[in-house]
Amino acid sequence: MSVKITKRSEDYAKWYTDVVQKAELADYGPVKGTMVIRPYGYALWENIKNIADQMFRDSGHVNAYFPMFIPESYMKKEAEHVAGFAPECAVVTHGGGKKLDEPLYIRPTSETIIWSMYKKWINSYRDLPLLINQWVNVVRWEMRTRLFLRTTEFLWQEGHTAHATAEEAEEETRKIIEIYRVLAEDYMAMPVIVGKKTDAEKFAGAVHTYCIEAMMGDKKALQSGTSHNLGQNFAKAFDVTYLNKENKLEYVYATSWGVSTRLVGGVIMTHGDDKGLILPPKIAPYQMVIIPIWRNGEQKAFLTERISKIRQQLESEHIRYLVDDNEQTSAGWKFNQWEMKGVPLRLEIGPRDLEKKQGILARRDTGEKLFVSIENIHTAATDLLVDIQNNLYRLALDFMKQNTYEVENYKDFKKIIEEGGFVKVFWAGDGKMEADIQEETRATIRCIPFDQKESGKCFYTGKATNTYVIFGKSY
Amino acid sequence: MSVKITKRSEDYAKWYTDVVQKAELADYGPVKGTMVIRPYGYALWENIKNIADQMFRDSGHVNAYFPMFIPESYMKKEAEHVAGFAPECAVVTHGGGKKLDEPLYIRPTSETIIWSMYKKWINSYRDLPLLINQWVNVVRWEMRTRLFLRTTEFLWQEGHTAHATAEEAEEETRKIIEIYRVLAEDYMAMPVIVGKKTDAEKFAGAVHTYCIEAMMGDKKALQSGTSHNLGQNFAKAFDVTYLNKENKLEYVYATSWGVSTRLVGGVIMTHGDDKGLILPPKIAPYQMVIIPIWRNGEQKAFLTERISKIRQQLESEHIRYLVDDNEQTSAGWKFNQWEMKGVPLRLEIGPRDLEKKQGILARRDTGEKLFVSIENIHTAATDLLVDIQNNLYRLALDFMKQNTYEVENYKDFKKIIEEGGFVKVFWAGDGKMEADIQEETRATIRCIPFDQKESGKCFYTGKATNTYVIFGKSY
Repeated sequence: MSVKITKRSEDYAKWYTDVVQKAELADYGPVKGTMVIRPYGYALWENIKNIADQMFRDSGHVNAYFPMFIPESYMKKEAEHVAGFAPECAVVTHGGGKKLDEPLYIRPTSETIIWSMYKKWINSYRDLPLLINQWVNVVRWEMRTRLFLRTTEFLWQEGHTAHATAEEAEEETRKIIEIYRVLAEDYMAMPVIVGKKTDAEKFAGAVHTYCIEAMMGDKKALQSGTSHNLGQNFAKAFDVTYLNKENKLEYVYATSWGVSTRLVGGVIMTHGDDKGLILPPKIAPYQMVIIPIWRNGEQKAFLTERISKIRQQLESEHIRYLVDDNEQTSAGWKFNQWEMKGVPLRLEIGPRDLEKKQGILARRDTGEKLFVSIENIHTAATDLLVDIQNNLYRLALDFMKQNTYEVENYKDFKKIIEEGGFVKVFWAGDGKMEADIQEETRATIRCIPFDQKESGKCFYTGKATNTYVIFGKSY
Repeated sequence: MSVKITKRSEDYAKWYTDVVQKAELADYGPVKGTMVIRPYGYALWENIKNIADQMFRDSGHVNAYFPMFIPESYMKKEAEHVAGFAPECAVVTHGGGKKLDEPLYIRPTSETIIWSMYKKWINSYRDLPLLINQWVNVVRWEMRTRLFLRTTEFLWQEGHTAHATAEEAEEETRKIIEIYRVLAEDYMAMPVIVGKKTDAEKFAGAVHTYCIEAMMGDKKALQSGTSHNLGQNFAKAFDVTYLNKENKLEYVYATSWGVSTRLVGGVIMTHGDDKGLILPPKIAPYQMVIIPIWRNGEQKAFLTERISKIRQQLESEHIRYLVDDNEQTSAGWKFNQWEMKGVPLRLEIGPRDLEKKQGILARRDTGEKLFVSIENIHTAATDLLVDIQNNLYRLALDFMKQNTYEVENYKDFKKIIEEGGFVKVFWAGDGKMEADIQEETRATIRCIPFDQKESGKCFYTGKATNTYVIFGKSY
């Protein structure tokens, strides 16, 4: 397959699809809007998943599995929820060759089925908190789809917790959005703004929604994770009460939260360049590719033997590596191929290098090449991987800062939104004004950042306020 | 919740359901035939899954994800396959509020969708072998369901491989059934008979099917894993060819193979007793439960401090343990509860034990209690866990041997089948006779074991043959 990909400056959307397909991350499935996650893309997803899963466990959560079929009647129990989700559901009407008595919705998210079970399991304060997560597929019928970012079926985790008090539920909601921030920033090297959604943008059925928002290479926002405080909405809809310590019946408080395969799209668009993917070392399927260069059998035997020692050293440092000794492709072709696939480090090594007892380490992020003594390749690589991880984060953070603008009036606002970027503005408007702005500019309030210290004048209404928000176009 | 469970001798099916529900492994979902896998059951499944996943990786397989929606037209491309699976499919007819042009089947297994993608990805011998696995949910509409053993939706892994030659496909099919044998015997302590299915029992679309068959506590068989050599059937149905080294187009050879959450049912019914679950240490979510016994605050403080040292020692030995210091339940209740949940080892420790610098280790498999010096608990536990694992396997193997009978005529055959057990017989019959026997006795040929050395007279036809088979009733 050709490694030629469209330039980002020519057509960003096309660049994205080229990278996803040519790096063999994913492919379109036969049903419109569905996606096949290919082994390389799935390995990337598994790395992200394993990190998140460990953080959930460390904070006391356990995994489980709930059925994907939701009876139509269950979907309808929470009014806002059904209004938000039912229109985009896939519906099973036949099973085992017969028409079903009641249509089954394929989960677009699992609040309804999970709360129907929590009703059975929760009786007293001793059963709380209940902290359950599941890693599953969900379906939302989408008209305009894009690989990883918006597909009819996607993979995600959804946490669903039950608590005795409003305070505990709020604490959980915030704990999780912090876990998501750490996942994005410390592992995916993807800086995010953490904040609260406006009522217009919150989850259907939530009291409020917290989110992490990242800036992609085209200056659009990617909502990358959400954590919802559901109050007692689902407990009331499914009649889930518990006996408190005073022996009084109370409704349970709930949260739900999720991140999805969309994160893979975030990695691609945060770090990728015109050569293809650039993967942060902490989540890269391979952190280093070794490309031996030989011209004859004698050189090959010699190199293979030396490389086996390097392999042992890399393993002792827990570096994930791959040796590409395919004899049917040239070294140049391999360089391009693995750059396109975003492997953070490349080790080139040939007979002349071996004479000098050295190898060449090439960084994917900067293109820099370093001559490193054979004995030190593993330690040099370990240091470089840390440096690449940090550098990718710093670059992305600088990019986000450079493309975040403060404006004081709607005219300037429209200019920035037109050109691309986040707009940070004081805001005292209402939902109607939010909708008007979206109608005219396609920009939405991505979030009300947690970090609120200043006060000023609303760019739209002119009112004094101590709230600022981030506007942007989004995926 | 009461820990009272039905005795196996009273009602084996009821015993099974009691154990599943009271040990909180699983619960019924709201849609008939669906199952909720609760955290304790899911942890058990994850342990089995992780072991299998590592074995697949070690033998060169990679994970991926294919969409669950299969267009109706794809299902119909392989004639035997559609005949076998279409009648038990769930069908999506509506999406996004509209009737779909073409109904979508929810995967009952993914050969059709995967081979439609392999057609895009496979061009030359360089693309082979392709060794892909996925861990997913599948749906088969079942009339009679039972938790873990037969549910409308279940979790499984399905491997789908593509090869250049018939020999390689056969080698893969056998390699996988051997991995399944190791998984069952060495990790789940569940002895199995490895063999080939008769044509009547093979997978719809396969050339032949290999299987592992285990004996449950009620002497019925559980088909626990299958590996199919698909020949060129799916390659021809989906027109998947490759250019061989001689530059000639050839159809690709295929295999597929899977194990499912049914394995959890196998663990329960292989080892469980009237007190509940007995879990093999290698897959138990907790290998040891520590139950401290105190009567006052002073004792509690002292015990907690000593236990923190024991915890460190257990961690150094990588023993998965849980401390149950819940003050709202009695020690006796805890003993019953954790026996019911099948934890292999229990450590009881109270102030008087501490005076003597000892604790009591109780084995779940034999009920045996051992006084062990505080300093040696971790090493004693490590040894005991190995012994319990081995003992469970040996007990199950003895049980299977004791309940496997050789018979020479149909009259004796019927008697054994009636009483329960496997029947090992020489067999020279055909598919029609197999169906007749099933009709009359409900027993089927579980497999034609790999291990064939003897010859004798067919119990049914009287013909001389060198093939023996295992008959049994099955789940």
